[in-house]
Amino acid sequence: MITLHGFAASNYYNLIKHVLLYKQLPFQENLIYGGSDELLAISPAGKVPVITMDDGFHISESSVICDFIEDTYPSIPLYPENTGERAVVRQIMKIAELYFELPSRRFIPYVLLGTEVPESTKAEVRQVLHRGISALNRLCKFSPWVAGEQLTMADIYVYYVNTIVSTFGSSQLDWDILAEVPGMKEWNNTMSQSAIAKSIEADRQTNMPEFIQKIKAQAKAKAAKIK
Amino acid sequence: MITLHGFAASNYYNLIKHVLLYKQLPFQENLIYGGSDELLAISPAGKVPVITMDDGFHISESSVICDFIEDTYPSIPLYPENTGERAVVRQIMKIAELYFELPSRRFIPYVLLGTEVPESTKAEVRQVLHRGISALNRLCKFSPWVAGEQLTMADIYVYYVNTIVSTFGSSQLDWDILAEVPGMKEWNNTMSQSAIAKSIEADRQTNMPEFIQKIKAQAKAKAAKIK
Repeated sequence: MITLHGFAASNYYNLIKHVLLYKQLPFQENLIYGGSDELLAISPAGKVPVITMDDGFHISESSVICDFIEDTYPSIPLYPENTGERAVVRQIMKIAELYFELPSRRFIPYVLLGTEVPESTKAEVRQVLHRGISALNRLCKFSPWVAGEQLTMADIYVYYVNTIVSTFGSSQLDWDILAEVPGMKEWNNTMSQSAIAKSIEADRQTNMPEFIQKIKAQAKAKAAKIK
Repeated sequence: MITLHGFAASNYYNLIKHVLLYKQLPFQENLIYGGSDELLAISPAGKVPVITMDDGFHISESSVICDFIEDTYPSIPLYPENTGERAVVRQIMKIAELYFELPSRRFIPYVLLGTEVPESTKAEVRQVLHRGISALNRLCKFSPWVAGEQLTMADIYVYYVNTIVSTFGSSQLDWDILAEVPGMKEWNNTMSQSAIAKSIEADRQTNMPEFIQKIKAQAKAKAAKIK
């Protein structure tokens, strides 16, 4: 059976959990936080999520895990068979990561420490998000799914990226970022109504208080180290 | 015939050019810089490189292009056939991107503008690079190639990532970053001696003066906008 390592407050963890549930693959969860020796033993960069296979093979990095799961379990496919269509799905995922997720993540340390984000950082993030909005406007179809008629890996990926954009990007910039991509909020709402997304959201809320406590302690230690 | 759009001073452009040359695929080059309308018409995020196929299909984002080329032209393979080995190759590429390339890139605007990098930024970048060094030390085999006995996409990818790490990361931090991964400098040297790498390097040097001029003008305009 696959073991999924990580914690339910992580959007990357939930992304892989959604993929496993969607593909109806049996798996067990192993609660583990960032920065632990247990995690470093199985994840080269010490990041969650990680999956472990029956034969003891570990693999980390969300987009890599997405590809590995699809390659290993092709039934209930999440990538189109056509190479061009598959590339477009990956392009949407990559653009969502680079221009939506990563800039929004820059606010997380400030939010967790309760300190003000410098204006220069906000300006940089805003510029990257504008690039993401423009690119996603050109790529996303919402007909009804992100890449067209079939639900693909891009739907699951962008949905969990959007949780970070909404929670950190929009709140810090006082800007309804998802509304800048027509069709995205409606599609996001549809995604959130699935049984899988609802069960993942319930688990997330249960884990959140413990996670917040852990990450605040880590962020404080990190800030002290930088000073 | 494939058209490769971009400019030879870009390491991402050179990465894809190396893949095309290695796989012996005929292609033509179209010189195009970032920020142009011509580029925005074919690249949703306005970034190079882009490739265009005979049927007019465009695709951008380097890692996506790598996968697309391999999917479309499987001969002279650059990914292992075994799903686990393929995942490890992708994991190395992803870790090199996130923890080597992207942090080193943060210095580029300062270098091009000739301004001092803030100490807080240097500290953040140093921390991310430490994570990358630790992860790559655990993943890279150099026996003789990055992922083992076969040259893979990871060799080409990491080689071009390293050009950014050396040029910007090492110089700004006064730190021989590649030397922190035993075997990497020797492997990097081997990579640089191939006929493909040499021809790409010659093209890079030819393009560099024009590129520097372009990017300095853009960086100044951007800085003025942020202020």
